[in-house]
Parts: sequence; C-alpha cells; structure tokens
Amino acid sequence: MSEKKQFTIGIDFGTESCKAILVDVSNGVLAAASEYRYAHGVITDTLPDSNIQLEPGWALQDPSDYLNALKRTVPRLMRESQIDPEQVIGIGVDFAGSTVIPTTADGTPLVFLEDYKEEPNAWPKIQRHHAAQEQADRLTRLAAERFETFLDRYGGKINAEWFFPKVWETYENASSIYNNAERFIEGCDWIVWQLTGVESRNVCAAGYKALWSKSEGFPLETFFAAMDSGLANVVDEKMKRELSPVGQQVGELTEAAARMLKLRPGIPVATGMLDTYAAIPATTVVEPGRMVIMLGSSNTHMVLAEKEYRIPGMCGMVEDGIVPGLLGYEAGQSCCGNLLDWFINNAVPEDYAKEARKRKMDLFQFMEEKADKLKAGESGLIALDWWNGNRSILVDDDLSGMILGYNLNTKPEEIYRSLLEATAYGTRKIIETFIASGVPINEIIIAGNYPVQNKLLLKILANVTRMEIRLAKSEYTSALGSAIYAATAAGETGGGYATLQEASSKMAQLKKETFIPDSNDKKVYNRLYSEYTLLHDYFGYGHNNAMKRLKAIRTGILEKKLRQS
Amino acid sequence: MSEKKQFTIGIDFGTESCKAILVDVSNGVLAAASEYRYAHGVITDTLPDSNIQLEPGWALQDPSDYLNALKRTVPRLMRESQIDPEQVIGIGVDFAGSTVIPTTADGTPLVFLEDYKEEPNAWPKIQRHHAAQEQADRLTRLAAERFETFLDRYGGKINAEWFFPKVWETYENASSIYNNAERFIEGCDWIVWQLTGVESRNVCAAGYKALWSKSEGFPLETFFAAMDSGLANVVDEKMKRELSPVGQQVGELTEAAARMLKLRPGIPVATGMLDTYAAIPATTVVEPGRMVIMLGSSNTHMVLAEKEYRIPGMCGMVEDGIVPGLLGYEAGQSCCGNLLDWFINNAVPEDYAKEARKRKMDLFQFMEEKADKLKAGESGLIALDWWNGNRSILVDDDLSGMILGYNLNTKPEEIYRSLLEATAYGTRKIIETFIASGVPINEIIIAGNYPVQNKLLLKILANVTRMEIRLAKSEYTSALGSAIYAATAAGETGGGYATLQEASSKMAQLKKETFIPDSNDKKVYNRLYSEYTLLHDYFGYGHNNAMKRLKAIRTGILEKKLRQS
Repeated sequence: MSEKKQFTIGIDFGTESCKAILVDVSNGVLAAASEYRYAHGVITDTLPDSNIQLEPGWALQDPSDYLNALKRTVPRLMRESQIDPEQVIGIGVDFAGSTVIPTTADGTPLVFLEDYKEEPNAWPKIQRHHAAQEQADRLTRLAAERFETFLDRYGGKINAEWFFPKVWETYENASSIYNNAERFIEGCDWIVWQLTGVESRNVCAAGYKALWSKSEGFPLETFFAAMDSGLANVVDEKMKRELSPVGQQVGELTEAAARMLKLRPGIPVATGMLDTYAAIPATTVVEPGRMVIMLGSSNTHMVLAEKEYRIPGMCGMVEDGIVPGLLGYEAGQSCCGNLLDWFINNAVPEDYAKEARKRKMDLFQFMEEKADKLKAGESGLIALDWWNGNRSILVDDDLSGMILGYNLNTKPEEIYRSLLEATAYGTRKIIETFIASGVPINEIIIAGNYPVQNKLLLKILANVTRMEIRLAKSEYTSALGSAIYAATAAGETGGGYATLQEASSKMAQLKKETFIPDSNDKKVYNRLYSEYTLLHDYFGYGHNNAMKRLKAIRTGILEKKLRQS
Repeated sequence: MSEKKQFTIGIDFGTESCKAILVDVSNGVLAAASEYRYAHGVITDTLPDSNIQLEPGWALQDPSDYLNALKRTVPRLMRESQIDPEQVIGIGVDFAGSTVIPTTADGTPLVFLEDYKEEPNAWPKIQRHHAAQEQADRLTRLAAERFETFLDRYGGKINAEWFFPKVWETYENASSIYNNAERFIEGCDWIVWQLTGVESRNVCAAGYKALWSKSEGFPLETFFAAMDSGLANVVDEKMKRELSPVGQQVGELTEAAARMLKLRPGIPVATGMLDTYAAIPATTVVEPGRMVIMLGSSNTHMVLAEKEYRIPGMCGMVEDGIVPGLLGYEAGQSCCGNLLDWFINNAVPEDYAKEARKRKMDLFQFMEEKADKLKAGESGLIALDWWNGNRSILVDDDLSGMILGYNLNTKPEEIYRSLLEATAYGTRKIIETFIASGVPINEIIIAGNYPVQNKLLLKILANVTRMEIRLAKSEYTSALGSAIYAATAAGETGGGYATLQEASSKMAQLKKETFIPDSNDKKVYNRLYSEYTLLHDYFGYGHNNAMKRLKAIRTGILEKKLRQS
C-alpha cells in the first residue's frame, strides 16, 4: 500500500455548477476533474414545478441539485482516473456563500417536505440573493447605533449577501418557515453533514458571513433581541455555538455517503469552507506578505496577517478563518469584469465590431490588443472605477463612475484602457491602505479565470502597484484548496500533512509566467495614480457629493416613472 | 419703375462654397439662390498644379475660385429669377475670416503672379489655417507682458485664426512675400475691391480679427515693433487706417464687374462683412437683450449692447462692428457638433447602428430619438463639455471633457443626452456671465443649419437656460444678412432703408416654432446646473489642475512617440 500514490478529493459548489477534482497528495497534480451543472440552476423567476413567482432580487437553489452533483461528479472522478478508492485519503468541500439552508433537526432541507415546498423562504437562499437588502441596511444601522464592535471588522457595513440578513428576511416574511426550521445552515456545512452525518459549523463561514469572531463569538443575545425579540436566541435555537476549525477532520464518510460517491466509508472529511477562502492555500499563499486577488466580475483581495489591525474599508477580518493561527483580511472592488462587460456591451463602435469579426477575435481580445498598443499616459484619460459603487476602501454604494480627460481624438481603446487602469488604481489604493495600517504586502497572486483572458490588465496592475504579479496555476483553485484542506484533515498519519502550510507548499503551484513592473511605465503610473488619489478623495470623502446627489435625483425620477407606469 | 419690386443680392463666401441669394427688399423673401463649390476647395496637402507640400495645419484657397464664384452665382440668380437687372438696388458681401490675401497695390493676389505661385505664403490663408499658432501664442504673451489694453477685449487671448498671426507667419517664414505684398487684405474687402475698384477695410473684420477698436484704433507701432522691428509700420505699409462702417456704400459696381455679374453698373456695393456677424440682422437681432447663438461644430454666442462692459472670457467686443451705435459682444463654445460627431463616430454600439439602419434613420436621429425618451436627471450623468477645451468663459485650451455618474446600467443614449446637456450648461454659464456683467439677455435666437437636425438640443437648451428659444427662418442667414446690409447701403433714396434696424425688421424673420421651458424640467436642470457649476469651477479655476497635468503627460508621450518614429 505504501508505495501507492495517495489522493484527496476537492468538491467546489459554485453558483451554476459543482466542480470536483481528484489530486495527487504528494504534488497536487490533477488526476481527474468533473463538473455538474445544476439542473435547476439559479432560481430567480418562479419556483420549480410551480407557478409561484419570486420577487426581484431573489436567487434560490434546489438542494437536490447539490446531492445530484455529489452523485454525478465523484464517481466520475474515480471512473475516469481508474484510481483505487483505497487511495483516496480525504475529502474537502467548499461552497459559495452565504448560502442559507433551512432544515429540520436531522438536516433535511425544509424544501424537501411537501408542506413547505411552495414557500420561497424554505429554499436555500444563495449568495447572490439580494432581497434582504432592507434587513442588511437595518442590521448595519442597528449595529452602528449600538456601537457594536463587530461592525468594525466588516468595514462598517453588513452585506445583504450574508447570513443574518437572509435569516431575518425569513423571520419577517415567513414566520412558519422560521419557526419550523430547526436549523439554518451554510451550504458547505450542510454538504459535510450529508457526507459524515455530523452537523458542524465552520469558522470560515461564521467569521466572514455570520458576524462571528474568535475573541467575541457571535453577536450577543441583546443585539439579536434588538433586531426582534423573537430572534434573541437565534444562535442557540437554530445554529451551533461550537465551531469547527478549518483544515480539520469533522467526521468520516458514512456508509450511505460512500455508496452514493462510490468511495469507501471512513474517509476523513474536512471542515467545510467558503469557496473564495478555500482557494487561498491553492494559490500558495499561507503566510503574511502576499495578497491574493480573485479577479472576476468584482474583485476580492485577501491577505493573511499575524496580528489584528484596524484597516479602513475592509469587507471582513477573521481569525483562523483561512489559515489556523493567522487572521484573514478581505477587501473588495465592486467593479472589474462587470465594468469591462459594460464597456463591451455599450461602447464598442460598429467598425470595431466588424473588424473584430473579420479577424475572428472576440471584442475583449480585440479591445485588449488595441489598448495594449497605447503607452501609459498616452490617452490623457483617468477614470474612477466606481460603476458599481466602491467597496474598499470607501464602502459607499452611492458613488458612481467617472472618466476625465476626453478630447475630440479620444478613441474607444483609450477609454477601455482607462477602465483597466482605474481598476488597477483602485487595487493600489487597497494595497496602500493595508500597508499604511501595518499589514505588509510585497507580491500579488492572481486567482480566478478572468485574468487568463486579460493579460493587459495584469501588466497594468504590475506597473500601477509596482509589484510582481504571479498567477495561480490551477484552473480549479477553490476545488484544489478543498483538496489541500482535505490532506490537512487526513493528517500525517492518514497519508496527508501535519499543517496547512506543508500541504500548500507541496500541492499548490504558481505559473511560470510573471508580470514584472516596467521601469518607465511605473513612473508614469505613479503620476497618474496621484491624480486618481486626488479625484478619489475629492469625490469619495464628501468634498463634492455630486455622485450622491445625482444618484438621489436619478432614483427619485425612476421611482416616479415606476409609479406612473 | 416705382411699382416694380426691388431686390438686393447677398453673397456669402464660406469655407467650401459661395452662396448667393436675391431677395425682395420689401419683405426679405427669397427670389433665387445659387451655390458654387470652389473648384480647388480648401487646399491643405499640396499646392494646385504643383508638388509643393503643405505643413500640417495649413489651409489655403485659390482666389480664382472666388472670382469664378461671382461669375457663376450672380448671373444664375438673375437668369433663374427672371428679374430685370434694373430692379437690383444693392449688393452685399460677407466672407469667412480672417482670410488674409496678400496682393499688389492694385489688388492683384500675389498668387496670380508667376513668380510667387509656388510659395504657400502667397496664397490666401483662410480662417481654419492653424499654422500660425506659434505666432498667436507669442502675440498673446507679448500683449500680456506689455499690459496692452486690447487684450482685454478678446478675453486675454489672440487666436491663431486671426489676421496678425497669419501676417506675422508670412513675415517670418517668407520674407519675400511679405516684402512684395503691398497689401494684406481680408477676403470680404478684397471681393468688394473687385466689385467697386475701391480698396476698403471694414470695421467688423478689423474689430473682430485685427485687434482694432473704435476708441483705440489698431495696436501702436511700438507693439508691432516689439513683435519685430520690421513690422513696426505694418498698418501703414500693408493695410489702411481709415475703416468703412458696416451697412454703408463703399462704391458702385464697375463696368467690368457689371459685365462679369451680368448686372448694370453703378449698383451700390455695401461694406464687406465677416459671415458670422453679417448673419445677426438676418436673425432679427439688431438691438440689445437677445442672444444669437450660431450652432455648429463649435458655437458662437453674440449679444449687442449699448455700453462697454468687461465680461470674463469673451472672444471679442467690437463697437459698431455689427450694428452701428452698438457694441457687439462675442463668446464661444469650442464644442458642440464636433462633440456629437465624436460620440457618433466612437461610442455607438453595433446593435444601435444596426437598428438605426433597419429603421432607415441616421445615427444622429436615432440617438436623439432614444435620448428624447429620457427624463431630465434620469441618467444620473453629468458632463463637462470641454472635449475641445473651453473658450468662454474660462479661455483655456488645456481643459478636457469629463463624464461623471456612470453605473453598470448606463446606456449609450444616456451618455449622448449628457453631452447635449453639457452643451446647454456651458451656454447657460456664458449667459449668466453676460448678465452678471450687466448685459441683459432675455431670449435666445438660434442660427446655423445644425439645430434643424437636433430639436432635442434646443428643447434642453430652453429648459437649462430657462429662456424661450426661437429659430432664424432663413437657411441662408449670412447671405440674407449681406442682402440686408446692401439694402441699408442703398439707403432710402436708393430704394432701400435708412437704418439697419428698419431693414432687418422688414427683411428678417423667425420661424413660428418656438421652444418654451418646461416647468418641471427646468427645475431639475436647475439642480443639475448647480452640479455642473461646482465641477466647472473645481476643474476650471485650478482647484484641481488634473486636466492640464494629464494633457501635459499625454503631450510629452505623443512627442516622444513622434521623435522615435
């Protein structure tokens, strides 16, 4: 047995699909990968097999899709890799979150019960469910009024995507669901429950999405009571106070689950994780000093640190949430891929579109090629990347985008490049804020599939931040991370590793390709960044609240239009 | 004879063509119109019949085109209208300017002489000749250093399109042309010379383009000597000090000219005019209180007033230059049609272009239709209309355009509308500056062909300025103006009018269509205008010189690129 290779499985539940991979524990090399697209996808309009309509902002999923994902992906990994199930030494699971599933005491989703399946609040509310915005806003206000210390850990703002706004929404709008739900549980913890029969709650999701911290625990009963007297004991009644550390074994694969997955029973299953954070060790980052940026529609920036710092405009700070013994800091940009999408959909002239088609390039490639021919500073343009507000460091949804420096010769590729540059300036602003607060950052690691398509963004990012930029090698960073956490959960004796650091150093890799700042461009961008900063501070810190006033006028007119229609 | 109708001819020399019209003196009704496109057009690349290349920025014309224009247009008016030449009681001429023609003492253009025709400086330099920018900049600096009082009348800046920069350019770069040119003369005065045999210089062109004023005359010899000792006596050597008032008879049509035009000799010919100013009486404006805006690629704003006011950011102030006894004030926006052209050429997405084609609309119409469906303030966008710098009131070429308020749902028509709105805000800024300086303005009259195509701009302009907007009726405002000046030159005894006021009241008309401010929209625009003002002042008055610094960076990079290529 000992000469045989050993493997772990990482299962990553995303928004549209579940991806599972089987990797070699000794070096992280992929043995097999398998993807299952949820049959019901994201449910936003009507509940499946019914004509029950959902309000705008709702986003649900069907837990049977999760189970089907397990049944379809894992057996396929084994089949395709031809690996002996005996060689699988651990399983890790990550999930997009906060995904809140109301269940009975034994973990049965309420929606599986005939009585509740026509009630939208009985269904899992996924991350992008935004219908609890009102509750989130009230939570923020309440916490601010009460000077709750937890608010500081989240940059002063509770997000509608998080755990308690969704639970509160259910409490207020579907009391029978709230009352009959014996548990509200994160998607990742629910999957682990299905695999092991053990109900656990992980530190990562509790810390980043449910206001928990290692030193203070969950908010106090008095806070929940201030939300609503009926919620005072929500933690004790509907959750668990004991949390499972990340990278540890929660339980073993049950007989039933083993049959479902075509694996042997008894395999160690690691604590569940949120997908974004699970990816970190897969980018090789398990120590302070390197920032991981998940580039996507919006961007997430993560840094590990040994001490607790107060950093303006963070999205979260969780001790032990990613790497045991370290604090994981998170910041974010509400705009990146969605901004470039906006440009491609709204601002590319017909002659460009025609030329791109002729050259068989998609518009992103075409615009990138044209923009890449420009020199830093050549356009004379500068933009504020606030098309979707500003998360870090200003934490202000009411800000909006700006482009300055247009002239009659301004070309579309100059505007496109100014948007890439603005994204980079926004990232540098976040990095400088971290550094100014005492958190060292010396290198940037990029994860997410987006950057592969946009080398120019990475080049500009290196020049603007004046840091070397490297890319995570795996295209399955979250699933690989789960496989790494699984190897840690298995432990040295189980064929894995004693520490997450060791597991990551063996199993995670970076691409050879690296982006090094150009000595000239970084000088030009230094000058441009100081212009960005002037504008950032002028519009961001209330010297001129034009953006907020314009948004208020706009909102008023749109509401009036809506009333009249 | 007395019961026979009487007519005047207005001849308008534009940039690409000459338009002549024959109008009924009693009511201004058009009897015939004729256009001649210059055979040589605008000469920008190589001199005709040669391989002599022109530098960038050069723009010349061939005076033989002017003579051919006279020969082709006027006889056609007579032929087509079947009017008896005896019924023509006056001729007026206007010309785009400053168009500087070097001639011999008898008015022969130097370029007609074999010796000079291969020298670009011997050719008429037309308004849009921009190669004398350096001389213009030096003139501005010199006048500022010497505290020359004339500089204030031009908003502190000498334009490269004006008379003396072009003459100085010739002096510096082609001394033989300067020395052999016995005269430098404006196009309009040169035509009048051809028609009457009389060399005259008109107050209008001298005032708006050659630094002359009624109270101070031309700049002093000491100023010209400071430019260059050889230029000290430029006025006495190459020009004339006596100027002809507008709307007066300079001379009579000569035998030779009458043969050329197929008219009777002896017809009174009016003082020449610049085209923009000749148009004013044709818009019915011959008194203070109403602003005429010539909408075009860029906009010109003109107001008459009884007293001399110092108004920030004007382009010119000339006593008697348009209407005898009144001062004519001019302001300008460097952007309007050219800004919309920029948008149409660079920012309309393919699906819009396709839909417009399907509906057989041009893109301007299509964008206007879409933008017209939006409410004031609905887009949340605000723009600074400085794509081509700002003429009035900031007089700053180094400013650039800006759009603020973008979000991920921002649509192209919202951006398009924000550009129209920005143009209107810029106009309101000019109007408010006039009013604050003591010049009353109560109504706006629009001239130029551009607005006919863009009703939305006029609607927005009315709502932003909170003034009624009316349109000049004639599509030949400059030519009609020349015909009105001709009727004044003929005088009451000659079958015309005693005053310009009387001539205009009989011969000029407005369209019935009128744009009246909407009570709701004007309130919204009042709020938006205050946002425009905040941004205008912040970026325009140096609180944040980002635009200038970005332009300096941009210029540096472009120059480096040029050197390397």
